[in-house]
Amino acid sequence: MEHPQTVKDCLGWAARDPSGLLSPYNFARRTLGSDDVSLTITHCGVCYADVIWSRNKHGDSRYPLVPGHEIVGIVKEVGSGVSRFKVGDHVGVGTYVNSCRDCEYCNDGLEIHCVKGSVYTFNAIDADGAISRDSWGGAVTALHRIDMYCFRIPNNYPLASAAPLLCAGITVYTPMMRHNMNQPGKSLGVIGLGGLGHMAVKFGKAFGLKVTVFSTSASKKEEALSLLGVDAFVISSDAEQMKAIGKSLDFIVDTASGDHPFDQYMSLLKATGVYVLVGFPSEVKFSPASLNIGAKTFSGSVTGGTKGTQEMLDFCAAHKIYPQIEIVPIQYANEALERLIKKDVKYRFVIDIENSVK
Amino acid sequence: MEHPQTVKDCLGWAARDPSGLLSPYNFARRTLGSDDVSLTITHCGVCYADVIWSRNKHGDSRYPLVPGHEIVGIVKEVGSGVSRFKVGDHVGVGTYVNSCRDCEYCNDGLEIHCVKGSVYTFNAIDADGAISRDSWGGAVTALHRIDMYCFRIPNNYPLASAAPLLCAGITVYTPMMRHNMNQPGKSLGVIGLGGLGHMAVKFGKAFGLKVTVFSTSASKKEEALSLLGVDAFVISSDAEQMKAIGKSLDFIVDTASGDHPFDQYMSLLKATGVYVLVGFPSEVKFSPASLNIGAKTFSGSVTGGTKGTQEMLDFCAAHKIYPQIEIVPIQYANEALERLIKKDVKYRFVIDIENSVK
Repeated sequence: MEHPQTVKDCLGWAARDPSGLLSPYNFARRTLGSDDVSLTITHCGVCYADVIWSRNKHGDSRYPLVPGHEIVGIVKEVGSGVSRFKVGDHVGVGTYVNSCRDCEYCNDGLEIHCVKGSVYTFNAIDADGAISRDSWGGAVTALHRIDMYCFRIPNNYPLASAAPLLCAGITVYTPMMRHNMNQPGKSLGVIGLGGLGHMAVKFGKAFGLKVTVFSTSASKKEEALSLLGVDAFVISSDAEQMKAIGKSLDFIVDTASGDHPFDQYMSLLKATGVYVLVGFPSEVKFSPASLNIGAKTFSGSVTGGTKGTQEMLDFCAAHKIYPQIEIVPIQYANEALERLIKKDVKYRFVIDIENSVK
Repeated sequence: MEHPQTVKDCLGWAARDPSGLLSPYNFARRTLGSDDVSLTITHCGVCYADVIWSRNKHGDSRYPLVPGHEIVGIVKEVGSGVSRFKVGDHVGVGTYVNSCRDCEYCNDGLEIHCVKGSVYTFNAIDADGAISRDSWGGAVTALHRIDMYCFRIPNNYPLASAAPLLCAGITVYTPMMRHNMNQPGKSLGVIGLGGLGHMAVKFGKAFGLKVTVFSTSASKKEEALSLLGVDAFVISSDAEQMKAIGKSLDFIVDTASGDHPFDQYMSLLKATGVYVLVGFPSEVKFSPASLNIGAKTFSGSVTGGTKGTQEMLDFCAAHKIYPQIEIVPIQYANEALERLIKKDVKYRFVIDIENSVK
């Protein structure tokens, strides 16, 4: 459904079909509502969700589709009812842009779990049941967004670095805080060292944890130790190494979406340890003994609420936590998606929207 | 290894081989140590663990084997160093009788997770690596037990009723408290209505929860509603009934050890809901989406620590929570085990040791 009173003044890059190839696309946005913030987009991070929906992997893609839900911009104009933001503010937008604002989760700052369903940032259906033609992702020059789903990016924080925090960052920060991983001296295992995994490492180090990274290949070892400062790097296929650290970890954050054996990793947890899954392998399978003996906890998570997102952004600014990013122009977006599929990125692509979408 | 200075003055019922058939057996116990409590056993509950080890289901049984780890007795004598108990006190002993007393778990009252391994009540290996010939279960007339692994049973609490609390009770109480299920007004689903399940129902009602029981058959429905006071009884094979209560539960306690589909039950949890597994099906298998979407938690547990066990006993006495038991003489033990295997018990057998082991 096209909204009335729109002007086709925005330029984005959209996928037109399941090939997922992005190319320039002109579109109209809604007129500024009273609770809207008008943003000039500067950067957008590239998340695996962009691959999934650009290429219709879940069978529910609606074309044309402008991906991107790690959005950073500068406020250009605000609606009459907006008091939280003013022109010139640095603002982030994450994986959802609306929710019912009336359920137990919305009232608790956990809008991602809204009982009526949070409205995703792109490829979304509005609350009225119609396709939201404002659900453009961040690969565009400008957007209107409801103020309460926008986040303050502290002025001293680089805009490009802020982008990956809006999905990758909050996805690991949320369960890490929920399960009280901010206890200096405890030990954390991180499975997978991609966009999410490297943020789990950075939060873990900021929390004062001893961080062990598990990877299927040795190629990332040196950089993990020197650049990311991890305390130990274990090749998960090395049975001796794995056995040597049995029952030694307080926490595990599992960011891997490829299939992997859970019993083996769960044996690395101490009693009452917590295993957090944020990846989407094809299935989760383990022995009840791996869970029950030692009273372990296996918990899942997806992104986070508005309250946690703002807290995480402020925490990153205060602790000078910056994602490792590779900044690319929009013209490189299709290659970036290909490289993301091949896991050939250290550790997050960020598209320089401001200087390349013209 | 036989301890020195023992007298063959105890009569118990032991299994001699993997048939698991129990029959009278005379044995010696250790002389009373300074930290020992000497108990005259009055009752012992029958747990599925008795089936497992009497019949060598795990391949590690050591015969002769006296089962039973829901032990209740009266103090007959105490060692010189014992101040917690005096002659005539009512005492319970649960699933373990020793631990290192020096690790983080022992220091925290969570001895079941002792890093050196808690010493189980029967069929156990002592800390010195030898078979503990004091590891007789409760199907005996008398026992010596280290005082710190004995629990006070309040004087007003019936001894027979106390027995099932020492394993079935603490097994569900521990995770229910750990996951803060004592929140009046919240909703609990209980899967399986045996010894553990019916205790989860009783704790749930005492906590002020709305309790729904899931069962594979309707045979227990009327009694669950009238006798146990459950709020709803759902036949798990009824897809319509199951769908109708989707996303409605805050907590699930799963006591079923038969294989059952986890995704279906997890879909009944609200966002951030907690699923506790205390049974041992052959495997746990679910889709990551069942866990991640809604940030659900799947947690395991086995029995509990000394701190929680005492707290649970006091809670049961204060709230007049009594297991539903069928009291039988030791001569009925073999039939009781057969009936337990067939799930033909409402809801726990308790052996009247005092009046039948002679």
